[in-house]
Amino acid sequence: MRTSPLFTDLYELTMAQAYASEQMDERAVFELTFRKLPANRNYIAAAGIGDVIDFLSDFHFEDRELDYLGQYKEFSKAFLERLKNLRFTGDVYALPEGTPVFPNEPIVQMVAPIIEAQLMETLVLNQVHFQSLALAKAARVVEAAGGRGIVDFGSRRAHGTDAALKVARATYLAGGSGTSNVLAGQLYGIPVFGTMAHSYVQAHDCETASFEAFAGLYPETTILVDTYDTFEGVRKVIELSRKPGRSFRVQAIRLDSGDLGALACGARKMLDEAGLRHVTIFASSGLDEYEIQRLVNSGAPIDAFGVGTRLAVMEDASHLDMAYKLVEYGGKGRLKLSPGKVLYPGRKQVFRQSENGCVVRDVVGRFDEQLPGKPLLQPVMQRGAPITHVKLEESRQRFQSELASLPSHLRALQPSTTPYPVSFSECLERDLQRIRIKLAHGT
Amino acid sequence: MRTSPLFTDLYELTMAQAYASEQMDERAVFELTFRKLPANRNYIAAAGIGDVIDFLSDFHFEDRELDYLGQYKEFSKAFLERLKNLRFTGDVYALPEGTPVFPNEPIVQMVAPIIEAQLMETLVLNQVHFQSLALAKAARVVEAAGGRGIVDFGSRRAHGTDAALKVARATYLAGGSGTSNVLAGQLYGIPVFGTMAHSYVQAHDCETASFEAFAGLYPETTILVDTYDTFEGVRKVIELSRKPGRSFRVQAIRLDSGDLGALACGARKMLDEAGLRHVTIFASSGLDEYEIQRLVNSGAPIDAFGVGTRLAVMEDASHLDMAYKLVEYGGKGRLKLSPGKVLYPGRKQVFRQSENGCVVRDVVGRFDEQLPGKPLLQPVMQRGAPITHVKLEESRQRFQSELASLPSHLRALQPSTTPYPVSFSECLERDLQRIRIKLAHGT
Repeated sequence: MRTSPLFTDLYELTMAQAYASEQMDERAVFELTFRKLPANRNYIAAAGIGDVIDFLSDFHFEDRELDYLGQYKEFSKAFLERLKNLRFTGDVYALPEGTPVFPNEPIVQMVAPIIEAQLMETLVLNQVHFQSLALAKAARVVEAAGGRGIVDFGSRRAHGTDAALKVARATYLAGGSGTSNVLAGQLYGIPVFGTMAHSYVQAHDCETASFEAFAGLYPETTILVDTYDTFEGVRKVIELSRKPGRSFRVQAIRLDSGDLGALACGARKMLDEAGLRHVTIFASSGLDEYEIQRLVNSGAPIDAFGVGTRLAVMEDASHLDMAYKLVEYGGKGRLKLSPGKVLYPGRKQVFRQSENGCVVRDVVGRFDEQLPGKPLLQPVMQRGAPITHVKLEESRQRFQSELASLPSHLRALQPSTTPYPVSFSECLERDLQRIRIKLAHGT
Repeated sequence: MRTSPLFTDLYELTMAQAYASEQMDERAVFELTFRKLPANRNYIAAAGIGDVIDFLSDFHFEDRELDYLGQYKEFSKAFLERLKNLRFTGDVYALPEGTPVFPNEPIVQMVAPIIEAQLMETLVLNQVHFQSLALAKAARVVEAAGGRGIVDFGSRRAHGTDAALKVARATYLAGGSGTSNVLAGQLYGIPVFGTMAHSYVQAHDCETASFEAFAGLYPETTILVDTYDTFEGVRKVIELSRKPGRSFRVQAIRLDSGDLGALACGARKMLDEAGLRHVTIFASSGLDEYEIQRLVNSGAPIDAFGVGTRLAVMEDASHLDMAYKLVEYGGKGRLKLSPGKVLYPGRKQVFRQSENGCVVRDVVGRFDEQLPGKPLLQPVMQRGAPITHVKLEESRQRFQSELASLPSHLRALQPSTTPYPVSFSECLERDLQRIRIKLAHGT
């Protein structure tokens, strides 16, 4: 689905016209980075670059979009004509999807004529910021579940349709089982799960009749037992299993309210005593990684979790100070000295060093430096054309293996007292000082 | 833009097939309500019904969508055939957009054959939940600014593209000036604003040259002064105003970092002493309603605010326990007794009572009751066709006048110790007891 190039902040367009009128056509390097992790995140992980590649590959203004811009007194006919023919012709480097990332490390690096690179800011930030945070959140939920299944149930409370789809994708990318969102299943080819809702039970005059009908149509279904009284609901499922004349293949019951730990224990006991050891327990209702960890640690016999609202809105870390910053123009490093927002100049590379299969430190250096460690930024577009295709299954596997190489204190839900070490190379420090001094002598 | 009917939780479709196979074709009433306001909200306000109407009016499955569903073992050919011809034929009632709403009051009421009403749940919730919260958040930001301009700058940090657009719309609906998002301007016909970014300044070898070039092209622009040193930036703007041979029409300077209050005071003094009293000060950087209120109360000479991240992600109240519940099927009231999630049965109306132009209490009654006060739920679709068109300007005016009729303690940013009184009518209380007793005697 095409995203309109009008999905941009107005100033990107006014600045682009200014660059055009000043004949500023040289190559710019913009880098997407953040300065600080939220208090309760030890890492985030790159995601969303596929959407960036799709947007850039198909970047063009349609007539009705140019007509709309024609209503602004700011834009000249000549500039609109230039936009009409504008395509993205630059190179893009990015961290492979699923790579853990830390403060001050470029996640995406755009190398393109400044007008083109400037116009992409809003969409690149909108997608990579949100999807990288969603991946980090989903990873925590998956981690807390300790191997039990996690299904994204968040579509109804996610912030709009795009967020719902991207959370579904991020959950699978993080190692979750899948989502309840059917459109996400179609778009991303991920597994889709469903149980039953209270409304189905309520629409029947009697709970037992609703269970019988649903299990008749979907023999291996999950039955929601808490519409009126949870243990009564479990009792009715057990009754159903004893009905003569039909095989009972119901796979699970679902708890969606109350004290999930206590209810799961009681339900497990009832099911086991009835010889239904194979019927699993699925729980949902206001869950997040903290609550799942608490339930798992308490030994609650819950086999899988549906996680909705708190996963989708990421309430404990809903944003990052991620920004898309000019670091080079016309071959010269550029910096910024705004209070609290100092920026290192020049095009960069991230070198990740490992010892015994465990990552130990990153050094951010000049792009052309040769430093120990694995260089993380990889080319994804060249002269406007994609040279790689982001495949969700590959990203998912990469994330699992990257996660395995992180020190365990960073994978823990608790904030680490020892942040992962990221430093700047000596070359970069020198570049910063050099340009600082130059600026002091006359901007 | 069409939203696919696959934007739904899988269980909506499996339940729909179950209803079909059980010949459950009777009329259902679903109501969208929430049980509890977030700790720091005294009200929310209805928004997003236009998207619901658009979705329902154009509801149909395309061939490729049915092909995708054909891959699920759960769905029969007969059911897919039924989906192929399925359209929404029901009635919809809703609170007019911009109406303040409190716990237990239906925001949207769907009256339709149960299959149709069930299939709409996910999208209705996704849109109305988010947009109503976004309106309430934006209203607080506008309130805090006390008449100063508010521009939405949140597109880069909103959760995906849909959220960015809806936040832009909600900001305008709440009484804000507009947005920086150009696509939102095109889609909703709202004012779009832009200043300049640090990257533009950085791309020039000298800050003064960047100011001159931008003001040359856009004489009435806003100049961003904090790229290297804020007061130095202001000084350069003043210098620019004294250049002979051209008129100086720059309208504003923008501060985007540091201690905004102190910087605004210093900048105001410099501008005034230079005879530039007409140059206003625009501030941005990590703002929300609390920080804006603090700045305004401190007397900081800031004329307008750009509000981004915290408005867009609504971090202090990013979700509500809003749900879409079956309250009637086949003419019978339906309830739910899940712990903490009790539901009153039957189709409802909200009666809002006023005294001296100020609203004083709401009573939720049966839909057919005649109670004192203004009935709030209004028909918006009849037999599948829209009978009203949501107009943003009308919604905006309605919200202003509704807000004016709210007691001032509810409009305040601080949590009110006296919640707005909402009660259930005696008839509804009797209905709940009657059905409770009936359920106890045999579900």
